[in-house]
Amino acid sequence: MLPEWISLDCAAPSETHRQAALARQAQLTKPLGALGRLEDVAVELAALQATETPGADRVPVVLFAGDHGIARQGISAYPPEVTVQMLHNFAGGGAAISVLARSLGCPLEVVDAGTLADARVPGVVVDKPCRGTRDFSVERALTPAEVAFACEAGGRAVARQADHAPQLMIFGEMGIGNTTSAAAIAAALLTCAPADIVGSGTGLDAAGRTRKAGIIGDALARHGLVSPTPVAEILAAVGGLEIIAMAGAIIAAAQRRWPVLVDGFIVSVAALVAIRLNPSCRPWLLFSHRSAERGHAIVLDALGARPLIDLDLRLGEASGAATALPIVRLACALHGGMATFAEAAVSGRES
Amino acid sequence: MLPEWISLDCAAPSETHRQAALARQAQLTKPLGALGRLEDVAVELAALQATETPGADRVPVVLFAGDHGIARQGISAYPPEVTVQMLHNFAGGGAAISVLARSLGCPLEVVDAGTLADARVPGVVVDKPCRGTRDFSVERALTPAEVAFACEAGGRAVARQADHAPQLMIFGEMGIGNTTSAAAIAAALLTCAPADIVGSGTGLDAAGRTRKAGIIGDALARHGLVSPTPVAEILAAVGGLEIIAMAGAIIAAAQRRWPVLVDGFIVSVAALVAIRLNPSCRPWLLFSHRSAERGHAIVLDALGARPLIDLDLRLGEASGAATALPIVRLACALHGGMATFAEAAVSGRES
Repeated sequence: MLPEWISLDCAAPSETHRQAALARQAQLTKPLGALGRLEDVAVELAALQATETPGADRVPVVLFAGDHGIARQGISAYPPEVTVQMLHNFAGGGAAISVLARSLGCPLEVVDAGTLADARVPGVVVDKPCRGTRDFSVERALTPAEVAFACEAGGRAVARQADHAPQLMIFGEMGIGNTTSAAAIAAALLTCAPADIVGSGTGLDAAGRTRKAGIIGDALARHGLVSPTPVAEILAAVGGLEIIAMAGAIIAAAQRRWPVLVDGFIVSVAALVAIRLNPSCRPWLLFSHRSAERGHAIVLDALGARPLIDLDLRLGEASGAATALPIVRLACALHGGMATFAEAAVSGRES
Repeated sequence: MLPEWISLDCAAPSETHRQAALARQAQLTKPLGALGRLEDVAVELAALQATETPGADRVPVVLFAGDHGIARQGISAYPPEVTVQMLHNFAGGGAAISVLARSLGCPLEVVDAGTLADARVPGVVVDKPCRGTRDFSVERALTPAEVAFACEAGGRAVARQADHAPQLMIFGEMGIGNTTSAAAIAAALLTCAPADIVGSGTGLDAAGRTRKAGIIGDALARHGLVSPTPVAEILAAVGGLEIIAMAGAIIAAAQRRWPVLVDGFIVSVAALVAIRLNPSCRPWLLFSHRSAERGHAIVLDALGARPLIDLDLRLGEASGAATALPIVRLACALHGGMATFAEAAVSGRES
């Protein structure tokens, strides 16, 4: 059973503040609409933050890592031990997200939500029900209790960010094999063909992708996921602990009225899970980037999402969301800092 | 006659540094290529800056303003006096680029390259041969001497930035009527139909666009620009002082080995002019964004340019380049700050 809080309603964005933000945008010294999506982002954030001065200065990044039994089937270009090695790299400051978080002034918390690590990695929060999932090509990846634990781990991670007073949250992931789990979850939730949603992950070639799609297709059939199935059963059958933790975290953040800047393919699948579990979290999600990972376009379409940037990124680790964050910040700076036509004594549009 | 320095060769990027940057990217703790265009940007900048540690911390923004006689023909949604009013707004800190430059820590210089202002605006550099261009629907916009003066003004603006030791330059523009001049220049240079390249500017409707295209088409015929014409003659016939100043500035920056992050439609037209005058400046141009202004796609295609972002911006003022700058900065931070596989003791790809 999933925790009860998962289904508690998230608040609606503030329409009053949205209208005020739209009215302000119409008064700023630029042709209306000339700042395009920067205007949209500022207005959206004003509504979500229920403020006249939207901001994205305080943006904690929480990275969830997990290992996957399915990695034994050779569906990744990298060996499974890379997940734990990368935990050290995240904590040591050498990974992409470490550099990005530092550059952006974002607090970074790394959560071992289910890696194979048995020793504690300094600087990493351990919150896992087990060391990795089981190989879903031969058995269910997780027990219902493990699924519930991962949801709670996501909620706990969000609760730990309260001291930062987040204006926006970023969640990220790392885990060898997790594009395979994410693709299986998405294929089951969207009842689409694995071949349509399977991508290269860390760098499979065409033959590798075909093999990966075959393994997912067989698993969906084995676990009875080819017709609509309750979300919790899909997660137990083919889920990943870091993916489930992110779904829980997304819902928990939205329940606290913290908007979430969604990263790439895997976080978008977690967002899809979160929305299926609790549709009221949908307005709290902003989408940062379109990943080069094949299945992302399908998931974004299913979510009706239009991301801010498209830079052929396919790393995960919240790197796409972090790269898009400055755009959100500039949108807020423009909204708050530009002069109005009246303040600047600039003539408006000719009638 | 254009100044002689315009045709002096720009240096080639450093292939040695490009190869070193590519080699470093292959050693960073991520699948090769997983950071997509962020990798490309860092490698390109390493080659242009001839360094192992590309950076974009010191990025002056120079904004050129000018007025246009053609504005008398009602081709803009705003009255011509807005150009001078906006000079005050730029200097006063209330315009979009003022806010962006402040947020990004970029020095901002505003140059009156040819507005109608006759009084000095505090904080604005005045460097103009005349107050606005002539109405190109009835006569040539500029004399050859005025064209040459504007080129020199661009060169002088670049020379003034030397104290900032620029790692990258951003040029921007403002001037009621300048999308009409830019569209006319682009149509003449690319021998394409005005209707294909004319956009809404500050907000024309479909009828306004049709009228604007008609005025441009008539002017191209009147000035004999419907067949290939020397660039300097095109500039005299339908040019704008701020556009010509930017073309000169782009060449002058490239000659100093300062890469340029190109803004939207009008700056891209200035870049097209610069490349036609001096093809050796082409490698020094990075393209920031795809504008919502209709003709930008055509100009970008002609330049073989693939911008970083596409956010429906259509303001000008270097706002697109400024919005993309953090992406360039993050690309550099990742290139310099990430650990290698060896440093982090992370396993590489399985063979």
